[in-house]
Amino acid sequence: MTQKAFQDYYPDHLSHCYGCGRLNEHGLRIKSYWDGEESVCRFDTQPYHTAVPGYVYGGLIASLIDCHSTGTAAAAAYRAEGRAMDTEPPLRFVTASLRVDFLRPTPIGVPLELRSTVKEIKGRKVVVSTVLSAGGEVCARGEVVAVQLRNI
Amino acid sequence: MTQKAFQDYYPDHLSHCYGCGRLNEHGLRIKSYWDGEESVCRFDTQPYHTAVPGYVYGGLIASLIDCHSTGTAAAAAYRAEGRAMDTEPPLRFVTASLRVDFLRPTPIGVPLELRSTVKEIKGRKVVVSTVLSAGGEVCARGEVVAVQLRNI
Repeated sequence: MTQKAFQDYYPDHLSHCYGCGRLNEHGLRIKSYWDGEESVCRFDTQPYHTAVPGYVYGGLIASLIDCHSTGTAAAAAYRAEGRAMDTEPPLRFVTASLRVDFLRPTPIGVPLELRSTVKEIKGRKVVVSTVLSAGGEVCARGEVVAVQLRNI
Repeated sequence: MTQKAFQDYYPDHLSHCYGCGRLNEHGLRIKSYWDGEESVCRFDTQPYHTAVPGYVYGGLIASLIDCHSTGTAAAAAYRAEGRAMDTEPPLRFVTASLRVDFLRPTPIGVPLELRSTVKEIKGRKVVVSTVLSAGGEVCARGEVVAVQLRNI
């Protein structure tokens, strides 16, 4: 994709996140985009991202939901203010709570897709709901309460 | 420690987990032990396990809670059956749901300690509650519903 991801707009000093920082060479470099009212993230697992053989590690799924949700929260906050993500001041969110329901084992080696919707924006809080699927089959659901960082 | 960790008793074919598999050379190799009625896990973060500068990545915290909890569930199930972890048949659990509340930012570079209690054992389900602290300060709480794998 040539479109910039939400995370590509984060200021440099906030781009070292292990999950989604473009400047963390050890990290997962999770990328999120709008697709209409939903945000979408696609991720290709590595063979070592396994739980039991053949299936994706749950902690990785939690990580994908986490960073995709805080990115979605930031993008939604810019939208709510009616301005683009490259305008000042920057908005950046952290996770207050994370819930993941693992509905079935997630097969490894299949591209993963996360689709999220913003359930609530209230003050500094954004609630994001996510469905993770592999090969079109829903494998996990997530909910994140994200809170806007002050003074970044 | 010379004591064997819960995860050291997992059968080889179930020891490739990215979070806790002793045979996954890319993984975190999370280790859990009994300390009386609580289980404990200690983990030293790497500098690249960061979220915002100075603090631990939430997805790593979720991963620690996840594997420590499924390990604790297995150990508790052996205890409930009155047998040691090196006896047959092996018991191994996966995560049905994971919840993490991030109470405050977790400082990086400080050894992390997770302490868990078993809230419920019922059939194939075990509920594990966890407190994560850094330098003695509680930074996150977790709850995992773990379910025993069949036919391993």
